[in-house]
Amino acid sequence: MTAPTRRQLANAIRFLAIDAVQAANSGHPGMPMGMADIAEVLWNDYHRHSPSNPHWANRDRFMLSNGHGSMLQYALLHLSGYDLPIEELKKFRQLHSKTAGHPERNETPGVETTTGPLGQGLANAVGFALAEKLLAQKFNRPGFDLIDHRTWVFLGDGCMMEGISHEAASLAGTWKLDKLVAFYDDNGISIDGEVHDWFTDDTPARFEAYGWQVIRKVDGHDPVEIKKAIDTALKSDKPTLICCKTVIGFGSPNKQGKEESHGAALGKDEVELTRKNLHWDFAPFEIPQDYYAAWNKVEQGKKLEAEWNALFEKYAAQFPSEAQELDRRLQGELPKDFIAKADEYITKVALDGATIASRKASQNAIEAFAPLLPEVIGGSADLAPSNLTMWKASKSVTEADVNANYVHYGVREFGMSAIANGLALHGGFLPFDATFLVFSDYARNAVRMSALIPAHVIHVYTHDSIGLGEDGPTHQPVEHIASLRLIPNHDVWRPGDAVETAVAWKQAILRKDGPSSLILSRQNLPHQPRDEGQVLDIARGGYVLKDSVGTPEVIFISTGSELALAVKAAEAFGDKARVVSMPSTDVFERQDAAYKERVLPKAVRKRVAIEAASRDFWFKYVGLDGAVIGMDTFGASAPADKLYAYFGITADKAIEAAKAL
Amino acid sequence: MTAPTRRQLANAIRFLAIDAVQAANSGHPGMPMGMADIAEVLWNDYHRHSPSNPHWANRDRFMLSNGHGSMLQYALLHLSGYDLPIEELKKFRQLHSKTAGHPERNETPGVETTTGPLGQGLANAVGFALAEKLLAQKFNRPGFDLIDHRTWVFLGDGCMMEGISHEAASLAGTWKLDKLVAFYDDNGISIDGEVHDWFTDDTPARFEAYGWQVIRKVDGHDPVEIKKAIDTALKSDKPTLICCKTVIGFGSPNKQGKEESHGAALGKDEVELTRKNLHWDFAPFEIPQDYYAAWNKVEQGKKLEAEWNALFEKYAAQFPSEAQELDRRLQGELPKDFIAKADEYITKVALDGATIASRKASQNAIEAFAPLLPEVIGGSADLAPSNLTMWKASKSVTEADVNANYVHYGVREFGMSAIANGLALHGGFLPFDATFLVFSDYARNAVRMSALIPAHVIHVYTHDSIGLGEDGPTHQPVEHIASLRLIPNHDVWRPGDAVETAVAWKQAILRKDGPSSLILSRQNLPHQPRDEGQVLDIARGGYVLKDSVGTPEVIFISTGSELALAVKAAEAFGDKARVVSMPSTDVFERQDAAYKERVLPKAVRKRVAIEAASRDFWFKYVGLDGAVIGMDTFGASAPADKLYAYFGITADKAIEAAKAL
Repeated sequence: MTAPTRRQLANAIRFLAIDAVQAANSGHPGMPMGMADIAEVLWNDYHRHSPSNPHWANRDRFMLSNGHGSMLQYALLHLSGYDLPIEELKKFRQLHSKTAGHPERNETPGVETTTGPLGQGLANAVGFALAEKLLAQKFNRPGFDLIDHRTWVFLGDGCMMEGISHEAASLAGTWKLDKLVAFYDDNGISIDGEVHDWFTDDTPARFEAYGWQVIRKVDGHDPVEIKKAIDTALKSDKPTLICCKTVIGFGSPNKQGKEESHGAALGKDEVELTRKNLHWDFAPFEIPQDYYAAWNKVEQGKKLEAEWNALFEKYAAQFPSEAQELDRRLQGELPKDFIAKADEYITKVALDGATIASRKASQNAIEAFAPLLPEVIGGSADLAPSNLTMWKASKSVTEADVNANYVHYGVREFGMSAIANGLALHGGFLPFDATFLVFSDYARNAVRMSALIPAHVIHVYTHDSIGLGEDGPTHQPVEHIASLRLIPNHDVWRPGDAVETAVAWKQAILRKDGPSSLILSRQNLPHQPRDEGQVLDIARGGYVLKDSVGTPEVIFISTGSELALAVKAAEAFGDKARVVSMPSTDVFERQDAAYKERVLPKAVRKRVAIEAASRDFWFKYVGLDGAVIGMDTFGASAPADKLYAYFGITADKAIEAAKAL
Repeated sequence: MTAPTRRQLANAIRFLAIDAVQAANSGHPGMPMGMADIAEVLWNDYHRHSPSNPHWANRDRFMLSNGHGSMLQYALLHLSGYDLPIEELKKFRQLHSKTAGHPERNETPGVETTTGPLGQGLANAVGFALAEKLLAQKFNRPGFDLIDHRTWVFLGDGCMMEGISHEAASLAGTWKLDKLVAFYDDNGISIDGEVHDWFTDDTPARFEAYGWQVIRKVDGHDPVEIKKAIDTALKSDKPTLICCKTVIGFGSPNKQGKEESHGAALGKDEVELTRKNLHWDFAPFEIPQDYYAAWNKVEQGKKLEAEWNALFEKYAAQFPSEAQELDRRLQGELPKDFIAKADEYITKVALDGATIASRKASQNAIEAFAPLLPEVIGGSADLAPSNLTMWKASKSVTEADVNANYVHYGVREFGMSAIANGLALHGGFLPFDATFLVFSDYARNAVRMSALIPAHVIHVYTHDSIGLGEDGPTHQPVEHIASLRLIPNHDVWRPGDAVETAVAWKQAILRKDGPSSLILSRQNLPHQPRDEGQVLDIARGGYVLKDSVGTPEVIFISTGSELALAVKAAEAFGDKARVVSMPSTDVFERQDAAYKERVLPKAVRKRVAIEAASRDFWFKYVGLDGAVIGMDTFGASAPADKLYAYFGITADKAIEAAKAL
């Protein structure tokens, strides 16, 4: 018996994809059929990983930016020996299977990032490759290339059309991420049909303009050409784009090269015809043993891992503190003394009682916390002096020196947040990114992806309301705070003074299982006095800041820059009013029922919420009998104090509303 | 007395900007100072417009994609004779002035689009230029170049870094929009400083890769070079990018070429030094008469307009129906019989009572309405077969033939919506665009801009919930419906069957003063029987679909695909339950109090809202005593019916919740 040919090995991918999509009667067979030959060469000859340990630190990272081709990835993981048995492939796209419609990091071993929303996988990959480069610079020593792995990413026409491909590729070129290799599935087909009427870019020229090495034309079905291209990529001092001419749905006699193979099962008859055409004589989900043998990388992976472990032990002997620190960072553990030091800082801030903008309080918190956490990597989309995201020890990533902890992302909000997701997912880093709150819109789906994947990323959003003043309605968020709160598994904080800002930062750092957004003011906010218990309660998301004597007649609920207005309004009611500060409704909702009832007793229905933003959100807390002081329109261009008066976001209006209840 | 030199004329812009920013102590002097010489040449030698009539149909369009340089535009409008007196410039960035922080179309005569969010002005410009080309192809006749004007757009490094510049420029190149001329303010400075560490693209090569003519390097302070470049642009059969090397803050001895001049007033001393340096001997806001004389274009504009009016009259004599139709479209008036025909169609749909997906009902509505409205220009971000946005008479825009009514935007959601904004703002078109609801995220800020500018655009979003099934959580919207409802001046419709879908389309077409989003199901929805009054009430956004006998004990409120669940749940309560269908909460909120009270009587507190989406939004309608059947987490990959059961979005759960109240 002769060993299976390369084409036959690739056909194993093709038929796992064809048959799984057919079984689910849902999915995308065209891409796996088109990219199978490329994937076969990459995974059998180059990709260094350890299927029995998907978390091996120095593995190469592989990701599908064209995530609809998920069956390609599942086939690769299954064939190479990951814990993804054939039964799971048979349950493609079914509830509780490990084979979701699009690759999901937390569902399937070996999936590095969740993809599907086009272009973001490429940006994630840029984050992974930057993480690798930064860790290597920080921890490698002569003779100890501990961190030394590649990032491989597949992408399609859709990714190339998306704007985020521009943002991510531009930065990858600037940073000379030489270990990043992208395989472009240039099949000329997208969902609307042949792309020539809507996609005529000279893509190779475009990537050359970003400073990439471009291998302009490879036959994506010829293993020899593919190998040559990858070999060229390995020698480059720049990121490499390999443009692979492929046939979508390769092998399907009637659907190959056509949109019909893209996003639907081939159909029973066409599946049979494809079997004949590719001489695939095996039943659905049947892969002969010699194919498995040729594909399996478990032993090879164990060997790679063992070599690396040995290297690490030697390194640990020679550089014990570095080894310990690297290990800590890769495990995602905080330094043991972090919480104590953070609490010390919070106590100090509470004692200081400064009246400052929460963006400034945020910078102070960064100044306090970042030196404790070398894993922090900050950044902003070209608004560092406004977001106040740099600190004394921050050092910028440049082409010449990526040994740094601050990223100037340029004016690229979407790319920034998707790259930050990649940095977090790689391991070893705790990224924060920043822009004006209104421009969270530009990054919106990457923020959603932080929450969905999930990735431990902190989003810093300043200039959070009409309080930013003269820049006007294009720059004034109205719907954004509420709209970010709606994203599941996403903690939104809008702190009311410097103390709440410090606590929000601490909580966002502690929260490993998802992202947090910190929503901060441009303008100064007065300090609110609190006792120790109240300072502790900030971390519960909502708490009583000023209380009534006995059951309150009216409760004012507020956040951020309006908290001081709530305090002022409450004064008009003497000892009958309560003020609830609610810096994070998300966190407050996770408290036990008894605590929530203590803060917001069900029986008290006279409630007034005050936030310089969309009113709609707050009915959740004030119900049909309460009032909301907020906005239903866009803002305007004027000094901030004029705008607060004009839009009626004042203590007087809150008093009026409370009296009217 | 000698006439002012070109440089002196340009200095008039510089000092209006310097002094206005200084007076406001807020704003961006650097860009107007840097681009003044370019603007002077363009506006004095090329730009064809009529300051006394900012709405002249055949005017050239001018826009600032780098909108923070708003004072450049205000200076140009003021100097050339628009109704923007010097008093308004003195009130730069003040409440109720005509000189907002960023240019706003509805605030200032002569401002074609609202800019500030970077990159979108360029995409708007692509929409304007496409509109011009389409209208010209449709209405011009030999000897009658009625529609024949240019689109000029200024843009900066920020616009170039943004992903949307990739999407918009790629389409402009594909469509060969030869009357589009972009001036790139290549000053090497962004807010974080000198861009070389985060922006190293070869931008000219990038634009050549898109099929643009690129004039690679022009001294942006040399009128002769600028003129030569524009002359070259005028002869091109492609869009042209003119790369202008400029000095930000040109003329400021200590701040030119530096970030310090970008986003803050120069300061009193530096203003004085700049005056000396540029030999500007006039007081703040003082412009000598001979400068005004050289700048003023009122008479020239009147002449251009008169010539055009004469041409139009001749055209009208020869092509009366075309002239009438062009006039109607430019006025934005619907055909007289549209409403009657739309109502006829709605009646027919109500009689048919089909069980179809609302995306299919939407396609049927397009099929019915688009032939009545030649101004409709549809499109989708490469999801035409899924969004169901093409109709029998739709004809695609291609490079070879832009005489069409359907745009294949490719996978470019953000570019799409910003281009649609441009199409709408140009006049003559009613654009709709489309993608999966979850990918409204990618376009989010352009949707916001539709509402803020406002632009009459219809956003079609299909696959609106877990009901899309197997594609899984990356493709399943959860927070999106509520999140779109939060955008001010934006009507969101989520129709519950084919009848509501037809009404939603009609209302979105009638609503001229802003955008509407139509949120549609992938899966089939059963028809709901209604009487004539109920069919009419759909247009009120919310209405009683099934009523109780007497005051309801419980009210079920629902939208879209969950409406049928509400109807089923109500059945369990016999004649004691009411079902309120709420396809548009935005529209419902605009109804009078009496109507709202009739639909949702304040006294009835047992309320259950059902929507396969974020629960938070619905507390606005059910208050603290009601219940919401919805989602607080992301979805999952599985067939739709399995997901509805798994996430508990069922009639049984609604019944349970109602009983528990």
